[in-house]
Amino acid sequence: MPDTAPSTYPVDRVNQVKRCHDRGSYDRATVHRLLDSAALAHVAYVVDGQPFCTPTLFWRDGTRLYWHGSSASRMLRNLSTGEPACLTVTHFDSLVLARSGFHHSADYRSVMAFGTARLVTDPAEKADALTKMVDRLFPARTGTLRQSTAQEIKATAVIVMEIERASAKIRAKGVSDDEPDYALPIYAERVPVLTVLGQPEPCARMPEGIRRPDTLSGYTAGRLLEDVLADAYAATYPAGD
Amino acid sequence: MPDTAPSTYPVDRVNQVKRCHDRGSYDRATVHRLLDSAALAHVAYVVDGQPFCTPTLFWRDGTRLYWHGSSASRMLRNLSTGEPACLTVTHFDSLVLARSGFHHSADYRSVMAFGTARLVTDPAEKADALTKMVDRLFPARTGTLRQSTAQEIKATAVIVMEIERASAKIRAKGVSDDEPDYALPIYAERVPVLTVLGQPEPCARMPEGIRRPDTLSGYTAGRLLEDVLADAYAATYPAGD
Repeated sequence: MPDTAPSTYPVDRVNQVKRCHDRGSYDRATVHRLLDSAALAHVAYVVDGQPFCTPTLFWRDGTRLYWHGSSASRMLRNLSTGEPACLTVTHFDSLVLARSGFHHSADYRSVMAFGTARLVTDPAEKADALTKMVDRLFPARTGTLRQSTAQEIKATAVIVMEIERASAKIRAKGVSDDEPDYALPIYAERVPVLTVLGQPEPCARMPEGIRRPDTLSGYTAGRLLEDVLADAYAATYPAGD
Repeated sequence: MPDTAPSTYPVDRVNQVKRCHDRGSYDRATVHRLLDSAALAHVAYVVDGQPFCTPTLFWRDGTRLYWHGSSASRMLRNLSTGEPACLTVTHFDSLVLARSGFHHSADYRSVMAFGTARLVTDPAEKADALTKMVDRLFPARTGTLRQSTAQEIKATAVIVMEIERASAKIRAKGVSDDEPDYALPIYAERVPVLTVLGQPEPCARMPEGIRRPDTLSGYTAGRLLEDVLADAYAATYPAGD
């Protein structure tokens, strides 16, 4: 990002954090960090007045978000001309058991990003996106793969959305009761929720002698997915964007 | 559910699984199982043509989905008269490293549920929902809590959506390459992604002698969140609905 980039996303009635506004942030670094440590997003879009909420793999490139799918999918057919969309990422961090129903809650870190989603049609932008789609998760991996065919490239639609507005919302305080309630004889706790890697499962059909590349060394059982993804992102986008 | 309930949700152009339709299902038992083993959903709704994708805790009661928030939130102000919405739950199960960029993928199990969301205004339905909101996660817990105040009940808006259409989509095949590609000298693997509980953290401000209730015995470190949630759901809704 050039030095002249603003450090926050602009705020208006679309992205202003309304509920519990003390949990909100428009800081670019915060928004980007939460995006770059995730692979799964949910995208909201509208077709004939009907909202759809679709899960998808995604990644960030500067102030652009990319995701993809088959050219045949419902969302992509409707986004080709440019459609308003909202891409949301949520890190689910805990369930919170308080002393009243009202203060039962969850810790989480989420980002909502708003913009106009459109189909990537420029061949160079599409080729770069198809590379980054893989390398953002597994640094330098595309250089080791069977090359994509023209038919595969045609069949893969890539969507891009310039982030016009964004907000992060973070709750990280665990149990938080009304002051008088702490004296009550009621059990309260925070239950952490962790998204981690399991033991990687090599494909059973590899020719003999194929070794796991060193570039996957970060993908080890027990590590937090968000840490693995943040490291992979930083390897592919060393400037942070 | 009465014996006369259909075993599948109706299918039309809104909920038909278009992309990779072999991964789709409209079976009620499948849809409900995926919903009941989750606590976090993303809800898409529309305000003035702008789609929003909001993360929220939710639960199922029969063919109704409930979620909540402060009465002040943007979504809830607009849902009070009844608005089309889509609630999506995604279980993220793996990242898949294939031998071509095209076949890189993820294993997942998701549900998209469509209907008209409206504010719960009936006091009895709202009272029951505020109880279930907690007990669905922590069986019988509300009976042990400080009672809700009138102000708290007023400040908590509850949204209900009858599921009019729904579809499940499941990818669970790990590495799946084009047949000739298996012979290539390329490393391929499936990296499992697991969402588990961490070590529960009792609140530091409890009076002495407060013990953890047996009803929380399922909440132990290392268990899959989805298993814990499915068990808690079954304890609160023993008939499965």
